[in-house]
Amino acid sequence: MESNKTSQEQKPKVGSIKNKIVAQDLEEERKKANFDIKELTESYFGGKEKLEQHNDHISVMENDPILRNTEKWYDMTREEQIEHNFKRARRTYEINKEKYYHNYEVSYIPWFSAMFQGIFPFGLTMSMFSLCIQQLGDDEQVAKWLPLVKQMKMIGCYAQTELGHGSNVAVILEQVQYFQGLETTATFDKEKDEFILNSPTITSTKFWPGELGKFGGWAVVYAKMIINGKNHGVQPFMLQMRDTETYETLPGIECGDIGPKFGYASKDNGYLILKNVRIPRSNLLQRYVNVDREGHFTIKGDLRSLYSVMMFIRVSIAIGAAKTLGVALTIGTRYAVVRRQFSTQDGTKIERKLLDYQTHQFKYTPLLAYTYAFNFTSLALMEMHQQLLKDMKTGNFGLLDLAHHLSSGYKASYTRICYDGIDTIRQSCGGAGFLAWSGLPTLQTDYAPNTTFEGDNTVMHQQSARLILKTIKNIQRGFKPTGIFDYFNKFEELLSKKGQVKGSADLLCLVNLENALAVRSAFKIKTTAMKMATSQLSENEKANSAFSVDMVSMAHAHIMYVTFKYFLNHIENHPYKCPKVKENLKNLARVYALTELLQDSVSLYETGFFTVGNAQHLLEAQKEAIAIVRPQMIPLVEALAVPDSYIVSAIGNSYGDIYETQLEWAKNSKLNQTSVLPGIKEHILPILHGKL
Amino acid sequence: MESNKTSQEQKPKVGSIKNKIVAQDLEEERKKANFDIKELTESYFGGKEKLEQHNDHISVMENDPILRNTEKWYDMTREEQIEHNFKRARRTYEINKEKYYHNYEVSYIPWFSAMFQGIFPFGLTMSMFSLCIQQLGDDEQVAKWLPLVKQMKMIGCYAQTELGHGSNVAVILEQVQYFQGLETTATFDKEKDEFILNSPTITSTKFWPGELGKFGGWAVVYAKMIINGKNHGVQPFMLQMRDTETYETLPGIECGDIGPKFGYASKDNGYLILKNVRIPRSNLLQRYVNVDREGHFTIKGDLRSLYSVMMFIRVSIAIGAAKTLGVALTIGTRYAVVRRQFSTQDGTKIERKLLDYQTHQFKYTPLLAYTYAFNFTSLALMEMHQQLLKDMKTGNFGLLDLAHHLSSGYKASYTRICYDGIDTIRQSCGGAGFLAWSGLPTLQTDYAPNTTFEGDNTVMHQQSARLILKTIKNIQRGFKPTGIFDYFNKFEELLSKKGQVKGSADLLCLVNLENALAVRSAFKIKTTAMKMATSQLSENEKANSAFSVDMVSMAHAHIMYVTFKYFLNHIENHPYKCPKVKENLKNLARVYALTELLQDSVSLYETGFFTVGNAQHLLEAQKEAIAIVRPQMIPLVEALAVPDSYIVSAIGNSYGDIYETQLEWAKNSKLNQTSVLPGIKEHILPILHGKL
Repeated sequence: MESNKTSQEQKPKVGSIKNKIVAQDLEEERKKANFDIKELTESYFGGKEKLEQHNDHISVMENDPILRNTEKWYDMTREEQIEHNFKRARRTYEINKEKYYHNYEVSYIPWFSAMFQGIFPFGLTMSMFSLCIQQLGDDEQVAKWLPLVKQMKMIGCYAQTELGHGSNVAVILEQVQYFQGLETTATFDKEKDEFILNSPTITSTKFWPGELGKFGGWAVVYAKMIINGKNHGVQPFMLQMRDTETYETLPGIECGDIGPKFGYASKDNGYLILKNVRIPRSNLLQRYVNVDREGHFTIKGDLRSLYSVMMFIRVSIAIGAAKTLGVALTIGTRYAVVRRQFSTQDGTKIERKLLDYQTHQFKYTPLLAYTYAFNFTSLALMEMHQQLLKDMKTGNFGLLDLAHHLSSGYKASYTRICYDGIDTIRQSCGGAGFLAWSGLPTLQTDYAPNTTFEGDNTVMHQQSARLILKTIKNIQRGFKPTGIFDYFNKFEELLSKKGQVKGSADLLCLVNLENALAVRSAFKIKTTAMKMATSQLSENEKANSAFSVDMVSMAHAHIMYVTFKYFLNHIENHPYKCPKVKENLKNLARVYALTELLQDSVSLYETGFFTVGNAQHLLEAQKEAIAIVRPQMIPLVEALAVPDSYIVSAIGNSYGDIYETQLEWAKNSKLNQTSVLPGIKEHILPILHGKL
Repeated sequence: MESNKTSQEQKPKVGSIKNKIVAQDLEEERKKANFDIKELTESYFGGKEKLEQHNDHISVMENDPILRNTEKWYDMTREEQIEHNFKRARRTYEINKEKYYHNYEVSYIPWFSAMFQGIFPFGLTMSMFSLCIQQLGDDEQVAKWLPLVKQMKMIGCYAQTELGHGSNVAVILEQVQYFQGLETTATFDKEKDEFILNSPTITSTKFWPGELGKFGGWAVVYAKMIINGKNHGVQPFMLQMRDTETYETLPGIECGDIGPKFGYASKDNGYLILKNVRIPRSNLLQRYVNVDREGHFTIKGDLRSLYSVMMFIRVSIAIGAAKTLGVALTIGTRYAVVRRQFSTQDGTKIERKLLDYQTHQFKYTPLLAYTYAFNFTSLALMEMHQQLLKDMKTGNFGLLDLAHHLSSGYKASYTRICYDGIDTIRQSCGGAGFLAWSGLPTLQTDYAPNTTFEGDNTVMHQQSARLILKTIKNIQRGFKPTGIFDYFNKFEELLSKKGQVKGSADLLCLVNLENALAVRSAFKIKTTAMKMATSQLSENEKANSAFSVDMVSMAHAHIMYVTFKYFLNHIENHPYKCPKVKENLKNLARVYALTELLQDSVSLYETGFFTVGNAQHLLEAQKEAIAIVRPQMIPLVEALAVPDSYIVSAIGNSYGDIYETQLEWAKNSKLNQTSVLPGIKEHILPILHGKL
């Protein structure tokens, strides 16, 4: 065993936040940038204006001593986090009032959510609660309640799910059936002109709504409306839960927090038990339904409009997937170019950067490719959704099916990849990623609900599959689909296509890659549709028992192809001035497609698109594509513009300070406020002293 | 919208712990058992005797008011959990002393670890610390320290990793090189006959060792031994850190907890900074090395023995993977037969059981197959390891390479599948799985370190790959491998084999499935070995840069094949009396193999084992195999014998009580001890009242 003094001396300096020193390795990686980072950042945010707004929000958060994110957060109990965030919520209210109040709904959410550590207390009030009033209330109700919500004089939540009934959104768009199975009742008392709300069973307990437990004073409660013993289906009612002066719960209302969770520690997801709670008839949200003084029930307008509320959340979730994966990548990639492990470089004892291990690159580069792809696709979906909202006002529901198809599919595919990606990154940082100071544990656990809430991903893929199958049926009836379904017109051509792949170069060609993804999707769609068409089973059995795995797999393959198309479309059509920006995005598009094919290319062997030998070409192509991206990894990750003040990471900050701050935060953490922990003297020392 | 009264009335009753009622659905599933559950349970535990011992441990834990696990645990702060577990540690000491003391090392660990909620405080003392003394101490040191450890008069830890240096176990067995890069120094002071321990840099701070922060009074510290300015490599030293009377740290020692983490909340992973700490020369653990009074350094014996310590941990981790996955399955499967969602059954409005959705079955059945396979394989590895320990005492290291190969490979493949499996199960329970009361969040986060500690999984797969590549080289030199490498002798035959798969039935045949897995592994090994043999790159570049993804993929395929072989071997050779036990295990073996092939069968298309159409046959076969297992899911899961007292789950208990207890625990949880939370009056009411 020899001395390794030499290697110690030459080891590149890591960063120091305290001394404002940037790690040598990180600095060198930055110098490799071959493109206009600013231009890419602007397009990533959806335009210069949006980026400037975002930067403005960041500077507000960073410069405010109450709002500024802190590593102490990781070490707080739930109670402390919640109280801390009440304080911050108040501060956002103050700032919002003086600075952003010009357009409350649009501007408030982005400015804090861009930066807020933990789950923002007013989150539900400002999204679901406010949307419900706007979308489900009639003009009078909107005029009465919305201003109060805007002024934060009503803090509310969205009380739909029950202990026995999840976000049971069995939306068959042709036949809107919300909230099957909900058990809470709203019985009309004609005499007093009131509804009486009740939770008749344990399973009817409202369970899970955010801000229901402790924070919300109001709730939009979904309950089965019963008039004269007749059930008129589940309808939304406005309910005041707490006294405005004392904030104690009102009579007949029992509510509270549901307890500790995997993540979302600072959110008071709650339960609510109702016992003969009376509300005026006018508290029925009545844009689409009406109950008159005599108890006559009528439906007004098109119930499909209701669906837009839920869809908005899914569109936001799709955008959030890209953004969150970008945060994890920022932390992990910086760590991977500063942290070195094992002397495995020829001619030197200096350890190798994590990111210079092929296995590490194979984890990170695909995730970066997904981030850019998902971001641009989601921005396009957001535009489509806004168009839909406009159209619906004139009774045009033309975009509804497509927006439902995409928002369900994106939600399912993107959130799974994002969640798994954060976990991969966390694990790739070893112990440092397991430690809260990295920022990754909280990022992962707070992101976790995205795969299951607002429609479980498996159900969402099945929802997304519906329009695919419907389109196939329509084609058989002579329909010619366009847009993202355009490729359905040429299934025969696709399924007989030969890839002619003779080497890795053939798989670095974007046209070939697009074809490959189209063929894969076409094959899955065709075989699934065929099996379902020829099966003698009932529709229920086909969709839930016999072919549901086929449907999920098909929907995912289709969504990943569509995403690729939109991504290429963005690259081709966005007016980038710097040609290298386009080139880098194209390189990422290659990695995207190759990642997909490396995971699942059996369909291509089945159709004959791939032949013997192509598996090796595929792997070689990915190695080459990843090697091309490697020098641009740090610039491409930092183009996502995630500020230090947001990530609060002792290993992924912009200084490449991966040790000093970690140790400092550790030293200052809670358990170290006492030298000898409570319980040692009472329980452990007697053992040590042989006195037990 | 119609009334769904009818369906409400017919809905099967869920369970109630309070009223000792078992859910109707769960009861019916249990009745379907077609095999001798007890016989399977016994073999799962490695024999009747071990099962009885295990049950004995369970009853001790269940019946002791201090030791009994509680749902309160999920709602405790780190400080509370740690203090609570000090109390319980004391109680285990008392019970152990009176009941189990006959064989301390062997019996203590299994009896508490089988049942203990959170991470046991004495865990490191009794494993790594105790093992170090036994393995690294000379006879005199063992005689001096081991009895004290056994009596718990020395509580210690294993201080190896540093802030800048992970569990850097670059073990090249041919040339043992431990702990590359560690920076802590132990400088010999000849005059005083002492070593002086120092942490010369920030990165040399000992970081991560369990029980180092607050609990351990002693540590085995790894430090670079310097005598007369010469570096003699990293060696282990015994260090007292805390005063036995007061438990305050001794002069020159700064240590503490490293902070909050993703999981392991109750474990005090710590840091340690040493400043001129003097220890006697005799504190060098000197079974394999010696420094005499004059400072002369000598090496004694075979350093490979050291490796057995680390290997023992990996073998335990492999067994732990199966056991932990079994816990998650117990919770999730029970929930999936009681929880019903969506009216998707023909002829009834009663909602469908989660487990009657094909997508749900495709998640659960493979995980159950892995659980049984990993368990039986790990038990065999444990036997091999014990043989190795015996052999080594007589200087026979024959089994070392193989045991290293298997323990690294199992560790990497099994822990990844187990961790991902827990996560899949947690997500499949939707909101209920996200809530701590399910037991799943803690299970997942406390299991999480397994994929990264004791050798990161990527590195472990690369380690495991070494013996594969070495064996290939040896074959070229005329060597004929046996045992698990037997199939290497017939690569040519395997790679030209045709599967002759004409329908799903051909893929339900175990011989065909074994061939398929062998072909897949053979193809990957052959292509990787060939590419590496013909490459002109240096060994470093080949292993870390050019072909490391190939190596990882190859090692995994090989390990999964070997596991299948061992699993089949167990089924064939274990003297089961009930033929249905064998039949059920065979059904699970089919699911195991089909799951593997559905994930990755490209190699089979490449070799021609699979031909066009086989993808559909494969999926059909899996659907059939899973459908066969479906009625036995609950009996097969409950044969794993996971007691309610261990899982502490409000959704996965043996009563099928999935609602009542959940709500009760929620109501009693911490945040609900106050009606109006601190901060509401100060920060929120002023907003509500328009006073801000």
